[in-house]
Amino acid sequence: MTFRTRRWVRPEDLNPNGTLFGGSLLKWIDEEAAIYAILQLGNDHVVTKYMSEINFVASARQGDLVEMGLRAVHFGRTSLTMRAEVRNMITKDKILTIDRIVFVNVGDDGRPAPHGYSEITLTRDRIPARLSR
Amino acid sequence: MTFRTRRWVRPEDLNPNGTLFGGSLLKWIDEEAAIYAILQLGNDHVVTKYMSEINFVASARQGDLVEMGLRAVHFGRTSLTMRAEVRNMITKDKILTIDRIVFVNVGDDGRPAPHGYSEITLTRDRIPARLSR
Amino acid sequence: MTFRTRRWVRPEDLNPNGTLFGGSLLKWIDEEAAIYAILQLGNDHVVTKYMSEINFVASARQGDLVEMGLRAVHFGRTSLTMRAEVRNMITKDKILTIDRIVFVNVGDDGRPAPHGYSEITLTRDRIPARLSR
Amino acid sequence: MTFRTRRWVRPEDLNPNGTLFGGSLLKWIDEEAAIYAILQLGNDHVVTKYMSEINFVASARQGDLVEMGLRAVHFGRTSLTMRAEVRNMITKDKILTIDRIVFVNVGDDGRPAPHGYSEITLTRDRIPARLSR
Amino acid sequence: MTFRTRRWVRPEDLNPNGTLFGGSLLKWIDEEAAIYAILQLGNDHVVTKYMSEINFVASARQGDLVEMGLRAVHFGRTSLTMRAEVRNMITKDKILTIDRIVFVNVGDDGRPAPHGYSEITLTRDRIPARLSR
Amino acid sequence: MTFRTRRWVRPEDLNPNGTLFGGSLLKWIDEEAAIYAILQLGNDHVVTKYMSEINFVASARQGDLVEMGLRAVHFGRTSLTMRAEVRNMITKDKILTIDRIVFVNVGDDGRPAPHGYSEITLTRDRIPARLSR
Repeated sequence: MTFRTRRWVRPEDLNPNGTLFGGSLLKWIDEEAAIYAILQLGNDHVVTKYMSEINFVASARQGDLVEMGLRAVHFGRTSLTMRAEVRNMITKDKILTIDRIVFVNVGDDGRPAPHGYSEITLTRDRIPARLSR
Repeated sequence: MTFRTRRWVRPEDLNPNGTLFGGSLLKWIDEEAAIYAILQLGNDHVVTKYMSEINFVASARQGDLVEMGLRAVHFGRTSLTMRAEVRNMITKDKILTIDRIVFVNVGDDGRPAPHGYSEITLTRDRIPARLSR
Repeated sequence: MTFRTRRWVRPEDLNPNGTLFGGSLLKWIDEEAAIYAILQLGNDHVVTKYMSEINFVASARQGDLVEMGLRAVHFGRTSLTMRAEVRNMITKDKILTIDRIVFVNVGDDGRPAPHGYSEITLTRDRIPARLSR
Repeated sequence: MTFRTRRWVRPEDLNPNGTLFGGSLLKWIDEEAAIYAILQLGNDHVVTKYMSEINFVASARQGDLVEMGLRAVHFGRTSLTMRAEVRNMITKDKILTIDRIVFVNVGDDGRPAPHGYSEITLTRDRIPARLSR
Repeated sequence: MTFRTRRWVRPEDLNPNGTLFGGSLLKWIDEEAAIYAILQLGNDHVVTKYMSEINFVASARQGDLVEMGLRAVHFGRTSLTMRAEVRNMITKDKILTIDRIVFVNVGDDGRPAPHGYSEITLTRDRIPARLSR
Repeated sequence: MTFRTRRWVRPEDLNPNGTLFGGSLLKWIDEEAAIYAILQLGNDHVVTKYMSEINFVASARQGDLVEMGLRAVHFGRTSLTMRAEVRNMITKDKILTIDRIVFVNVGDDGRPAPHGYSEITLTRDRIPARLSR
C-alpha cells in the first residue's frame, strides 16, 4: 500500500465531540482515491461507483498527523478496485480501512469505457490526455 | 425511510468534472446519520463504526436539490444499524444508497455502552441529557 | 411550519466567543428558504429579495442540534413571502425567527415573472422544468 | 458610512444560478457588523440581536469587487443599532442594504450590560480589555 | 499604508496548536493584494507573480481582530510591486509583513501587458472595464 | 526533494479568473511544510517564522493534479529551513517554488527551543512526544 497525501487535523475537521469528523475522513479518502485511479487508468474522467466494508477502527484528535494509503487490487474491463487505509503517521495505528473502492473509467460519451489496463503502474507512465496539454 | 435534510448543489460541492463530488455526498450523509442516531439513542456521544455496500447510483449536477433519508434497521446492545439513501428531490432518482451504517453508543468513560433501546422512536421522546440543558 | 433541514453545530460554525455564529445561521436559513421557494413556485430560478424582523432569540452551542422551519404566508404575483424559524431540536427553544423572507420568481429573461400560484403545495406537484430532466 | 472590508467574489461564493449567494453576503455583513460593534462598544463580547429591512437590491457576479459599509445610528443603554450597506466597489451600485442591525453588549455574567457610550468613536479609543493584552 | 479588510479570528482559522494558521493568513493577504492591484492597474486580470521577505512577526489568537494593509512601492512596465502588513487592530502589533508582492497585469491574450501607470491612485479613477458593466 | 501530499484542483480552489487561487496554494504548502517540520524536529509545536523568494512560476487549472514537495536545507539551533516546490503531477511543470521556509521549534514555555538535530531524517525516527500517546 502506498501512503501519500497527509493532513494535520485542524479544528475545522472536528465533530462536536472533539474528535475527527467521519465525514471529513471520507471526503479526504475519496479525493485521494480519485487521484490514484486517474493515474492508474490514464484518464481524468473517473467516477466513484461503489465502496464496501468501511471500518472506522479508531478516532483521531486535533493535531494528529494522518496519511491516506491506497492500493489497486483488481482491474475490471471498465473499472478499478482499490483497497484504502488511513493511519496515524506517528503511531502507525489504523484509523479507517476500506476493503473495496470501485471507480469506473468514463469515455467521451459519458458512459463506462474499457481502459485497457490489467496491472498496477508504479511509474506513472499512463498520461491522462486532457492533463498533459 | 424518513427524508429530512436537503441541499441545493452549489459550485463548491462539485468535483473537477463538474458533477457532485462523492466526498461531499459522504460528508453530508455521515452528518445526517449522526443526527439520526443521536435522536434514536438519546445520547449525543455516538461514533461512526462501520459502513457497507455504498452504491453511487447516479450523479447530481449544480442546482440539483438532493435530500438525505435514513431508517434504523437493527438495534444492537451498544450499536444502531441504519440504511441510508440520498435522492434527487424532484425526480426521486436515487443518487447514493448505503445498506448498513453502524453507529456505536459511547458512555462517559469513552467506551461502548448499552443504550437500552430495541425499536425506532418516531416521537423524539429520547432526550440526550447533555442537549436538554 | 414545516421543519426540515437540520444541522449538528460543529467547531467551524462557532464565532470567537464559542457560540453559534450569526452569519452561519443566516447562511443556512437562506439556503433552506431558497429550496422551499423553488418547490412552491416550481422554478429553480428564484432570488432572495427582502427579509424583515430577524430576531436572534437565543444562541446555540457546539453539539446542539438545530432545525430550519419555513412556511409560505403570502403569494404575490411574482413573489413568495415566507416566515422562518430555527429552533433547537431537543428543547424546541427558538433560536432565530424571521417574520418575512421574500423571494422573487425569475423568468428566462432574468426579470421578475408571474408564477401563477396562490396557495401552498404540500405535495410537491410543481416540478421545476430544468430540474426534472 | 464607513466602507472597510472588501471581497473578490469567487466560485465558492456563488449560488447554483451563478450569482452571489445571499447567504454568503449575510455571513460577510454579520462578521463586519460584529467587528464594528466591538470597536464602538470597547467590548469583544457582543451578540447579534435583531435585523430589519434587509433589501437585496441587486446581485453580484463572479469577479466583482464588493465592500461592506456600516454606521452606528443609535446607542441604547446595553445595545448598539447600525445601518449597513454592501456595494459594488467599481460602479458604487448598492447590492444589499440593512436598515437596522442591533447588537447587544454582554457582561461577564453573560447578560446584557450597560456600555456607557452614546456617540460614535472615529478614533478607536475604546479598547476591548480582553483584546489589549 | 492603507489598512482596509479586517477579520475576526474564528475557530476555523486556527492551526492545531490553537493559534492563527499561517496558511489562512497568506490566503487573506493574497486576496487583499489582488483587490489592491486590480484597483491600481484598472484591470481585473492580474496574477500573483512573486513574494519575498515574509516575516511572521507574531501570532494571533481566537477572537483577535486583524486588518490587512497594502501600499504600492513600484510600478514596472507590466507589473506592480506592493508592500503588505497584517496587524492586530487593537494593539497595532505587527503579525505579518511582506516586503514585496509582485502582481502582473495580463492582457486579453493571456500574456503580460503594459498597464501604463507609474503612480499610486488614491481616488479609484482607474476603472476595470469588465467590472464597470 | 520529497513530493508527498497531492490535490485535485476543484472549483472551490479557483480565483475569479478561473485559475488556481494563489492563496489556496500558499495555504496548502504551509500545511505541508508544518507536517514536514514536525517530522524532522520530532515536535508538533512548530511555527512558521519566515518565507522568501516565492515564485509563482505557472498557473494550474480546474482538474489539474498538483503535488507538494519539500526538502530540509539547513538546521539552525532552534530552527529548520526548507525549500519547497509545487508541481503539476502529470507534466512535472513547476507551479510554485519557495527558496526558504523557516520554521521555529517551540518549547513548553512557548519560546524558541533547541531541537538538537543537524541532519535530515528519512526514517521518521523522531517521534513527537505529544503525538505518540
